Amino acid sequence: HLPLSIIAGPCQLESRGHALEMAMALKEICTRLGLGLVFKTSFDKANRTSAGAARGVGLAAALPIFAEIRESLGLPVLTDVHDAAQCAPVAEAVDVLQIPAFLCRQTDLLVAAAKTGRAVNVKKGQFLAPWDMANVVAKVTGAGNPDVLVTERGVSFGYNALVSDMRALPIMAGTTGAPVIFDATHSVQQPGGKGTSSGGQREFVPVLARAAVAVGVAGLFIESHEDPDRAPSDGPNMVPLKEMEGLLAELKAFDVLAKKRAAR
Amino acid sequence: HLPLSIIAGPCQLESRGHALEMAMALKEICTRLGLGLVFKTSFDKANRTSAGAARGVGLAAALPIFAEIRESLGLPVLTDVHDAAQCAPVAEAVDVLQIPAFLCRQTDLLVAAAKTGRAVNVKKGQFLAPWDMANVVAKVTGAGNPDVLVTERGVSFGYNALVSDMRALPIMAGTTGAPVIFDATHSVQQPGGKGTSSGGQREFVPVLARAAVAVGVAGLFIESHEDPDRAPSDGPNMVPLKEMEGLLAELKAFDVLAKKRAAR
Amino acid sequence: HLPLSIIAGPCQLESRGHALEMAMALKEICTRLGLGLVFKTSFDKANRTSAGAARGVGLAAALPIFAEIRESLGLPVLTDVHDAAQCAPVAEAVDVLQIPAFLCRQTDLLVAAAKTGRAVNVKKGQFLAPWDMANVVAKVTGAGNPDVLVTERGVSFGYNALVSDMRALPIMAGTTGAPVIFDATHSVQQPGGKGTSSGGQREFVPVLARAAVAVGVAGLFIESHEDPDRAPSDGPNMVPLKEMEGLLAELKAFDVLAKKRAAR
Amino acid sequence: HLPLSIIAGPCQLESRGHALEMAMALKEICTRLGLGLVFKTSFDKANRTSAGAARGVGLAAALPIFAEIRESLGLPVLTDVHDAAQCAPVAEAVDVLQIPAFLCRQTDLLVAAAKTGRAVNVKKGQFLAPWDMANVVAKVTGAGNPDVLVTERGVSFGYNALVSDMRALPIMAGTTGAPVIFDATHSVQQPGGKGTSSGGQREFVPVLARAAVAVGVAGLFIESHEDPDRAPSDGPNMVPLKEMEGLLAELKAFDVLAKKRAAR
Repeated sequence: HLPLSIIAGPCQLESRGHALEMAMALKEICTRLGLGLVFKTSFDKANRTSAGAARGVGLAAALPIFAEIRESLGLPVLTDVHDAAQCAPVAEAVDVLQIPAFLCRQTDLLVAAAKTGRAVNVKKGQFLAPWDMANVVAKVTGAGNPDVLVTERGVSFGYNALVSDMRALPIMAGTTGAPVIFDATHSVQQPGGKGTSSGGQREFVPVLARAAVAVGVAGLFIESHEDPDRAPSDGPNMVPLKEMEGLLAELKAFDVLAKKRAAR
Repeated sequence: HLPLSIIAGPCQLESRGHALEMAMALKEICTRLGLGLVFKTSFDKANRTSAGAARGVGLAAALPIFAEIRESLGLPVLTDVHDAAQCAPVAEAVDVLQIPAFLCRQTDLLVAAAKTGRAVNVKKGQFLAPWDMANVVAKVTGAGNPDVLVTERGVSFGYNALVSDMRALPIMAGTTGAPVIFDATHSVQQPGGKGTSSGGQREFVPVLARAAVAVGVAGLFIESHEDPDRAPSDGPNMVPLKEMEGLLAELKAFDVLAKKRAAR
Repeated sequence: HLPLSIIAGPCQLESRGHALEMAMALKEICTRLGLGLVFKTSFDKANRTSAGAARGVGLAAALPIFAEIRESLGLPVLTDVHDAAQCAPVAEAVDVLQIPAFLCRQTDLLVAAAKTGRAVNVKKGQFLAPWDMANVVAKVTGAGNPDVLVTERGVSFGYNALVSDMRALPIMAGTTGAPVIFDATHSVQQPGGKGTSSGGQREFVPVLARAAVAVGVAGLFIESHEDPDRAPSDGPNMVPLKEMEGLLAELKAFDVLAKKRAAR
Repeated sequence: HLPLSIIAGPCQLESRGHALEMAMALKEICTRLGLGLVFKTSFDKANRTSAGAARGVGLAAALPIFAEIRESLGLPVLTDVHDAAQCAPVAEAVDVLQIPAFLCRQTDLLVAAAKTGRAVNVKKGQFLAPWDMANVVAKVTGAGNPDVLVTERGVSFGYNALVSDMRALPIMAGTTGAPVIFDATHSVQQPGGKGTSSGGQREFVPVLARAAVAVGVAGLFIESHEDPDRAPSDGPNMVPLKEMEGLLAELKAFDVLAKKRAAR
């Protein structure tokens, strides 16, 4: 039972400067707390609610920034891929390829990500049962890559709403054998809840994160931004940077307790 | 932020001897752990899946047993009531009247329970949103009784299934002002899941209880039995008596951590 | 395959005069259309969202009005009962006792209703699967009364919302053997959706009623009022009286087509 | 209000011979009934539950077969596309590009499909509310293509289950302005319900199709196979070819009635 890892960063890669600043700030926090950090940011938001919404800097601009963060800060980097052709070039610049929830059943994408040899983090679809992730993980491991993570991010619950089933965490661990991550950011999303964009309930990030850590997870996924209300995407559910250290300190204490218990 | 209270006991009042033994055993455990205990058992299971299922010893037989447990063991007692006429006689013998989830909108029952002056614990219906409990609590307080508790026990999620939304705990606390209990026993029920009776997933009691305590609750409701597989009701979701001390010790540690945080 | 029956009337018994007027108006419509009519109205709304909401004229005042409607208009009458003690007196004055959805698992109420010998219409709980109604019906038939109807009125779908699963209609018919009614009024309810009262979507009454009749039902339950926006309860989902004839004429045409097919 | 159109065919393109036989048989049925037919079949099942499941003949092999069906039988052809690069070549050979439900928010795919100038049929994601489809349709029309259809195929309802909300049909029509199709095949799917494949409930295809047609739709999507139990995919929910004529005749009668009403 390894200590909690943190996957954190701004939802979108807004610019080189912003990404480096965020990565540095998060690294300092996690170093002080003794928590492992994987820096997360997206070069393209390929499935925004509306076509008019900001999508990000794009693949070509992002790759050198990812590489710079890895080299200059020594941080592993995670980003999401949306089609098979992106996997190989992205794998050159990052440590973990993430499969978005909507795409978690797309066989070609899973296999292409697997074949890069990089770790693959698959988000569980909002339409899937936790035990269904065993078939998803098998698509990656069956392509020769044993290095898979699975992430819970809420399940559809009526219209424009998600619910986080905490039973899903041990069920996915047991049925997939993969480390389980809890995505506290997208679990509080209200999909489509604001008409032409998704709403969110930032105030529940600490609530659900605490629950998940007490149940027992390998890692937490938490998006953060120095000014979420001005972020180009997922603002309503990102944690303000200045609150991250307090939140992570608290979650670390729950993780230590949960893993002491599990180690007995 | 008071320490965690435990509401525990066998689902059904099977006999005087069984009730006293269970109450004594649970009292010893909670005394060793320094946890408050309310003894819970039901004199009538009024809404079993099938008419043929065992319903319990009935009101007349139960009242002296409740009184004996209170007097000889000094334990507060909780039991559920199913119609307005039961409230006054039951209130003579117990400390807390519990309103079953299916009945949480029955105005007459809520008002009759309120008028006894005893504490009233209302279980949230499987068909209610957490914020809907504010109207339910107002029916009790509006009848002159400020001593109300609310209990989360899962919400309908498709057919024959419940899900526990951990956001419901702070939402109910905030919108009702009442102490919030998490019912870890019925939250793992699979309603109607076994054809003529409800199934359950006992293995998830510690999972959901840990999550709820980490989020922060006033109390936990956990049914227990020395031999759940032979219990006349709710066997699939009761915790074996011999596992209760380990479970409660672990949950106490999470509660201490959660309330230290909240007290800052 | 008998032709469609209609259960209709104002949600609440507001006064003798109002009930008689509504009954007469609905009788004229159904007579013109050749549709059987059961007049429905409630003497007590026992589970309103808020304690402050209007509850109706009460049992004692209602019974002579029910009797008068039966005698003077020759209409069968249906009303709902909320505890076992109401069943016998209500049965003296009405033809069908209805069990509210929240109470569909209360064994004593079902048995007391059954023992009156009157027909019993049980609404499926918002928390039940359609196949679970077999156990509910068995509580009535097991008490010696074969004359049971079952009514679909939507199932919980996230918070403050219901969805109507049209598969439930043949599933209930097949598993219970009872005639199946579709309640087009409460199926469009938005439970708790207006804070201290339930909302509704009257515009979907014809949509869901048409779907249900095309699938095949024994009857339709549709509440109506000459001025729904001023009705003391369920206004948002009642059909204005002046629209009933057009709606029922259309539904009759679908019923004739559905039953011609089924008769092949 | 145009008469009902039918989108039908075998789930997978199994071989040239099989596709031609099915297309011819379905054409004969629809010609006899006076119903418009679009032939549907898939060259690749890109999101099977398991990696080991059959995926189809592939794009290169399929295009000449699509072309042959269009030319020799004079039937419009519909097939689904899974990434942006497929859109242009597929558009050379078919009349309608279909966007799978899981991919209905992928902006690049929607725009690439739109830019071919072919009609685009977007299936509503199992995780979307009906009103959310307005944003999806706007991605296509915003790319200059007004020729969009939207298809209802069920919404997530607990785990491994879907429910068909008949209100979604008029809601999508009203909010998108696009013709609405009801997919009676995938609406009865039980996603992941058989462990390594999806289950289905073929017996409910006529039930849900009748409901949808009575509510009012522009078209129906029904997969069919001469021997569904031996089909490589979606066997549990395809309608046997020999039952199609009876089913479509019945549905046509409901459509005529529904549209006569609407035309008033």
